[in-house]
Amino acid sequence: MLTYELKKQPGMPLYEALYRCIREDILTGKLSCGEKLPSKRALAANLEVSKITVEGAYNQLLEEGYICAREKVGYFVEQVEQRFSQAAPEAPPQAKALQGIDLIANNPASFPFSVWSRLQREVMLDLGKRLLQPLPNQGLWELRQAIAAHLAQFRGMQVSAQQILVGAGTDFLYNLLIQLLGRDKRYAVEEPGYDKIRKIYAAGGVTCISASMDTEGVLPQTLWQAQVLHISPSHHFPTGIIMPVSRRQALLEWVKAGQDRWIIEDDYDSEFRFNARPMPALQSMDSAGRVIYMNTFSKTLAPSIRISYMILPMPLMEQFQKKLGFYSCTVPSFEQYTLARFLSQGYFEKHINRMRKFYKTRRNRVLAAVQQSPYAHKLTVQEENAGLHFLLQVDTDLPDEQLVARFAEAGIHIRSLSSYYHRPAPPEKAHCLVVNYSGLSEEGLHTLENILKSG
Amino acid sequence: MLTYELKKQPGMPLYEALYRCIREDILTGKLSCGEKLPSKRALAANLEVSKITVEGAYNQLLEEGYICAREKVGYFVEQVEQRFSQAAPEAPPQAKALQGIDLIANNPASFPFSVWSRLQREVMLDLGKRLLQPLPNQGLWELRQAIAAHLAQFRGMQVSAQQILVGAGTDFLYNLLIQLLGRDKRYAVEEPGYDKIRKIYAAGGVTCISASMDTEGVLPQTLWQAQVLHISPSHHFPTGIIMPVSRRQALLEWVKAGQDRWIIEDDYDSEFRFNARPMPALQSMDSAGRVIYMNTFSKTLAPSIRISYMILPMPLMEQFQKKLGFYSCTVPSFEQYTLARFLSQGYFEKHINRMRKFYKTRRNRVLAAVQQSPYAHKLTVQEENAGLHFLLQVDTDLPDEQLVARFAEAGIHIRSLSSYYHRPAPPEKAHCLVVNYSGLSEEGLHTLENILKSG
Repeated sequence: MLTYELKKQPGMPLYEALYRCIREDILTGKLSCGEKLPSKRALAANLEVSKITVEGAYNQLLEEGYICAREKVGYFVEQVEQRFSQAAPEAPPQAKALQGIDLIANNPASFPFSVWSRLQREVMLDLGKRLLQPLPNQGLWELRQAIAAHLAQFRGMQVSAQQILVGAGTDFLYNLLIQLLGRDKRYAVEEPGYDKIRKIYAAGGVTCISASMDTEGVLPQTLWQAQVLHISPSHHFPTGIIMPVSRRQALLEWVKAGQDRWIIEDDYDSEFRFNARPMPALQSMDSAGRVIYMNTFSKTLAPSIRISYMILPMPLMEQFQKKLGFYSCTVPSFEQYTLARFLSQGYFEKHINRMRKFYKTRRNRVLAAVQQSPYAHKLTVQEENAGLHFLLQVDTDLPDEQLVARFAEAGIHIRSLSSYYHRPAPPEKAHCLVVNYSGLSEEGLHTLENILKSG
Repeated sequence: MLTYELKKQPGMPLYEALYRCIREDILTGKLSCGEKLPSKRALAANLEVSKITVEGAYNQLLEEGYICAREKVGYFVEQVEQRFSQAAPEAPPQAKALQGIDLIANNPASFPFSVWSRLQREVMLDLGKRLLQPLPNQGLWELRQAIAAHLAQFRGMQVSAQQILVGAGTDFLYNLLIQLLGRDKRYAVEEPGYDKIRKIYAAGGVTCISASMDTEGVLPQTLWQAQVLHISPSHHFPTGIIMPVSRRQALLEWVKAGQDRWIIEDDYDSEFRFNARPMPALQSMDSAGRVIYMNTFSKTLAPSIRISYMILPMPLMEQFQKKLGFYSCTVPSFEQYTLARFLSQGYFEKHINRMRKFYKTRRNRVLAAVQQSPYAHKLTVQEENAGLHFLLQVDTDLPDEQLVARFAEAGIHIRSLSSYYHRPAPPEKAHCLVVNYSGLSEEGLHTLENILKSG
């Protein structure tokens, strides 16, 4: 006779507890196919529960096909695929914290918590049920307006909120672009460049080709095979090149010269130029409507905020709505309302100004530490006026792998410029390190200073 | 002589205001290529600013390539692509509110604001800077644990947090799956079915085929062309079919019979079954590791929350990490921490129970209104025991388009079952309406009752 210890559990009727026990026995094979179950009355007596309880459990099992009833004979176990019995796996959080100093990751150093949480409270109070409503697929109108106003004021860009599409990170937006522009096109990416871009395009199923660069950026004459060009003219990673106006114009000529050519302008850290105002965006110079502008709040606020946006030329946005308008917006409305207020009430500007100063100070400390190092005569700093990284040329004969390994031994995690090349890097680019200093903690900075001073 | 009215603007040095004015004139063609600019001293005198201000502006223009300097001659405007001058477009929010009663949209009726906002405050206070840290690409560990615990308790599922991947909506997760399982496979979707699924697969670049259904769900014998099957066995939309165990087992046989076959189980509204416990998930019955489980909090909490998740068999998750591990998690950490607490502190369960009662009452009211209608004898309700919709068979000779148009005239927006077919719907499926009642407001419900009563 089936015997179970049926414990009263809050929120679960007794019949269900019984149902679960029997089901478990069927799924694990303790009760096998064709086996007869006890009569309701007998099982009720055995378990000291009411007959109604057993009835409820049997009915549920019947309904779900675990047992069948033969009239006037009784209940029988059905043929059921037995469950692969697996012990519930323990749940260890993956500890993967990097020991030492991280000059590879590129994460913002601080976040305006108190303002942000106050705005969150206000949004919650002011909007209430409105937060429930599904958002337009391009994102909250107020947020798009605030972004457009910000870009007009601080980037000299004239865009309509109707051209803006808000998404949960640029990874997602690139995937949308591939679907919009077409998988049949060849996408040119900068060589060297940010490796992830190439991976995203490859995963999205498009052919990626390398666009060669000189000291002014991508060379237009190498683009004859490409239909889409992905560039970061404001501040190229990892070389730090700021593309001069003439080269920008040459690339705009390239994009206009062919049918259905596009430039994707990745403006990811244009906010952090130190010694001069940022260059105007390529998007502002584009009279033909062939430039797609991308930016993110991951670098300026926090990567865990997950809000990025792109600006499409209006006809392309119309195509998007026609072809891909069924996609829902990926950013929670709560985050969008909060960011809209953060922007329109001027907090973002203040935050950027504070961070610019902060990073400048930090950069100066890292540069000073480099200069005070006993190896200073072997180290040359390049492209230090923009963004959140600079290049450090090392006068050494060590191959890059060994150079990087030496740093790692000293507890400094860093990557060489050559490691950002997809093809083999040209020899003149060797012995050069990419220093991302934005994510350093005060402690890490201290340690770095000590390591550099002691040589 | 150049004359500008330079207004002091907060946060903008005077040299920059001047730089912007001159740049604007170059870009719009007021200053043409080759034109000589006034000397610094002359311009400073003209504008009544210091020579340093003019110097700052000229240097910026030089650096950005708008002007060039010829030694001992002066400054000249460079060849620059003129900007397409466009008036800043007005920004009208798109008003697209639906008039009348919406029985098409399927949105949750309420959201536990006060609890949610309290948890948000707690998360903000307790975690502070930790909210800044980038999350694992599968999502916050605590959230995945809470989801696994919830599924174990309320769905009888045994999954490890390591199998779970959290993402900003199922749209995004489907796109990841296409990249993971491969674009070369044929994906079978239910016919009839939720139209968006087919659009997502098509946009992702895969071939979609229709899987025929009988009264128990998808017919395995029609799947010989497919490698991936997308189904919602718990509660099919729009037919409301709950797939019996035998059919589930037949589909599990199908998936095991071929190499590299997969089932995607969309369990989107399994929480809202009224008259019995939900059926066990297909995922729980799958001993071969071939079922991918999908669910979302859009239907249970709010679509604007944007948190969905999928559960991959462990070997497939390992493949994901290898092949697509570069993707960042798309859900803000703040939302993830909040939801983790909402789940683990039991609020989600309470919310679901409350909503189940709420929807049941609402469904009963809609059903009562149908029965009290003068046309009651022409209306038959089907599949009303699950999910957030039921079917309404209408005894009429009107073609479906006209039937739907009649309802629209009365202010009721509704879709016919036949409209969810990709191929022409079989004639016996005509005259059937899909009633989504979850998104109705109290007012809408009232109006609906009146319309039905007055006939």
